[in-house]
Amino acid sequence: MDTERHTTPLAMDSGESGTDESSSTPTKLDRLLVSKLLEYSGRPKIEIRLWDGDRISSSNEEPIATMWLKSRSALKRLLTQRDIGFGDGYSEGQIEVEGDLCDFLCEVYRSKNQTDLELKGLGKLYEMAPKKKAKKNTISGSKSNIHHHYDLGNDFYSLWLDREAMQYTCAYYPFDSMTLEQAQIAKMEHVCRKLMLEPGQTVVEAGCGWGGLARYMAKTHGVRVKSYNISHEQIVYATERARSEGFDDRVEYIEDDYRNIKGTYDVFVSVGMLEHVGRQNYRELGAVVDRCLTDNGRALVHSIGRNMPELMSPWIEKRIFPGAYPPTIREMMDIVEPYNFSVLDIENLRLHYAKTLRHWLERFDQNEEVIAKKFDQRFVRAWRLYLTGSIAAFLVGTLQLFQIAFTRGADNSVPMNREHLYPYVVD
Amino acid sequence: MDTERHTTPLAMDSGESGTDESSSTPTKLDRLLVSKLLEYSGRPKIEIRLWDGDRISSSNEEPIATMWLKSRSALKRLLTQRDIGFGDGYSEGQIEVEGDLCDFLCEVYRSKNQTDLELKGLGKLYEMAPKKKAKKNTISGSKSNIHHHYDLGNDFYSLWLDREAMQYTCAYYPFDSMTLEQAQIAKMEHVCRKLMLEPGQTVVEAGCGWGGLARYMAKTHGVRVKSYNISHEQIVYATERARSEGFDDRVEYIEDDYRNIKGTYDVFVSVGMLEHVGRQNYRELGAVVDRCLTDNGRALVHSIGRNMPELMSPWIEKRIFPGAYPPTIREMMDIVEPYNFSVLDIENLRLHYAKTLRHWLERFDQNEEVIAKKFDQRFVRAWRLYLTGSIAAFLVGTLQLFQIAFTRGADNSVPMNREHLYPYVVD
Repeated sequence: MDTERHTTPLAMDSGESGTDESSSTPTKLDRLLVSKLLEYSGRPKIEIRLWDGDRISSSNEEPIATMWLKSRSALKRLLTQRDIGFGDGYSEGQIEVEGDLCDFLCEVYRSKNQTDLELKGLGKLYEMAPKKKAKKNTISGSKSNIHHHYDLGNDFYSLWLDREAMQYTCAYYPFDSMTLEQAQIAKMEHVCRKLMLEPGQTVVEAGCGWGGLARYMAKTHGVRVKSYNISHEQIVYATERARSEGFDDRVEYIEDDYRNIKGTYDVFVSVGMLEHVGRQNYRELGAVVDRCLTDNGRALVHSIGRNMPELMSPWIEKRIFPGAYPPTIREMMDIVEPYNFSVLDIENLRLHYAKTLRHWLERFDQNEEVIAKKFDQRFVRAWRLYLTGSIAAFLVGTLQLFQIAFTRGADNSVPMNREHLYPYVVD
Repeated sequence: MDTERHTTPLAMDSGESGTDESSSTPTKLDRLLVSKLLEYSGRPKIEIRLWDGDRISSSNEEPIATMWLKSRSALKRLLTQRDIGFGDGYSEGQIEVEGDLCDFLCEVYRSKNQTDLELKGLGKLYEMAPKKKAKKNTISGSKSNIHHHYDLGNDFYSLWLDREAMQYTCAYYPFDSMTLEQAQIAKMEHVCRKLMLEPGQTVVEAGCGWGGLARYMAKTHGVRVKSYNISHEQIVYATERARSEGFDDRVEYIEDDYRNIKGTYDVFVSVGMLEHVGRQNYRELGAVVDRCLTDNGRALVHSIGRNMPELMSPWIEKRIFPGAYPPTIREMMDIVEPYNFSVLDIENLRLHYAKTLRHWLERFDQNEEVIAKKFDQRFVRAWRLYLTGSIAAFLVGTLQLFQIAFTRGADNSVPMNREHLYPYVVD
């Protein structure tokens, strides 16, 4: 690929200079480094194919997939820019994976999980803690971070998200055979049931994406919703759609930061925003809920999370989602504990996210040509890696999906059990 | 009451000496102190009746109940031994509550919640953080702490716990009209469903009470159970009952500390033990689960908890439950996070515990005479206060009941949703 020509060859380090590195024979040092890479990665059952066609593996078992390093500079990137080297190398086509990309990533993540928390090895390239902090989510910083990701164009997302509500968050599959559209509706209904919505109630939503949940709540449960979002493109889309579908008397989309939420409401809901809030701002988010919730109000926060604290994959943080951080349950307690909120229910939908992502990836791949034309091949590869890597992370348990429902501490109008959430029947 | 004669009269402080204090007229200082007490308690809607019959309140509204201080020394205890003064004063009959005890306590707790976290006021007498730490739960310390509470005699507990399984933990009421017996069976079934028990599986239980859950699991779900408990009386009872009911081939009760659990199991369960484990030992409890759970094993911990960290009521800690501590969810995460366990489900059964306690209190009151004969009137009053105070604490949200279900991080055999928990049908 083009970009390869611009990379610095490893030549200087190995004593060679000015050669066409992709055709130069791997040296003894190259082979040693590849072996060390596999060793420090916990000896995953993968094979590394070098640029001369030679193959190296550290396990006697049949390899699950092959990582093809097309040049010495690809290897150098893996070793020196560990946190983003694989992601960028893959995106640019310097690194190819032969075999199933998801199986490859799962094996690498699992292997990494086994090699404990030491910062070494290939698997760590995806997940290890970077030296610098995640981008700060100040009000202006949040706007720039969110713009980076969500303003790529509604057209782009509409190519692979569900057609009905354009939900860019984990769907819910009460039945295995559900379509993406059905599962996103089931997710919205699941959230509404947890919140026990009643006609006429008022809802405030922090982070509304393309406005699907707000429309669903108004349409199906007869509530009035104010939705805050700082992505201009999403607000324009959501507002126009609410208008054209005749919901603009019940749903209002506000282009503003969640910290500027005004008024009091029966329900606070936030689906898929917490990842962008920043760990240091959870208490402030809790203060917003505390300020805007009525005495018998209900709240729900839905977020990607972790079993153990760890920063977002540095590559995803840098290339896909600036400022993103998936919290542990312990960390999420900063939203509720300082305000004496009572946690009613925490559900983990990890495997639902793996399924959702599979559906997204399938549509993304079907639209590869259109996307490549709109952006470029590097973008396609980067996003494929991001979607596939996320499937793998949910499958091996590196990522979780938590829905936390809570109320004020003294509210005795809470449901006695969760039977009202079940069963879910498809229309 | 007898004990009153031995208390130190407030005489010295007020300049009087040697008088029969219960008949001496309250001074200006006494009245000022009572007013301050009410003021610092957030002006609850209660009335204080002094030993001369005079009544003082700090609210213009109709009082919910009256606290009768039968002597100056009762007032002195409230003011000087704040953390245990009310509990002991009530137990000894120096302090009486006219009106519904539970309503009185709820009002005091609520009022306390409103007066923020400052350590002042009457409500704080029950709940405020004591200066010294909770009793340490070393292996020998735990034995002594547990002996204090659970070896009061099986006869005593059988007077007011459910007859079937003698569960001294929160029951579960899928239907409001359930009896205590039905609700305790429903609780055990709820736990079993969360754990997805299958015939032939092995279960280890940490803290088994009188062995009811182990018997239920073996009988209803065909599993083999090893149950650890350090209360000698409970182990003797449970073993004898399993033998007489013919379960001793499937259930083994072991008189030993949970830290000495040996072997590996498909399921780890602990219902109502965490309260006695001690905050500093949660990581160690997690290590025990990590050590003894198979790769696809399931775990459940059921415990009284808090929305915000706070020590157990000092009076309860001192008189009823030495070494007890109700953790927040954040604190409970010490069990799971260090070992990469994945939290599947957290349910809050707070209001179920209020209902359970009402059922217990009703039977306790029905058996008052028997209990007074076995112990004494002070014991009856102390336990009535403890049970009623617990109802109030669950009603106002000072206490929570958390059930946390978790598995290993990489286990993909977990259920996709929680529909299998519902509905619950009474046989």
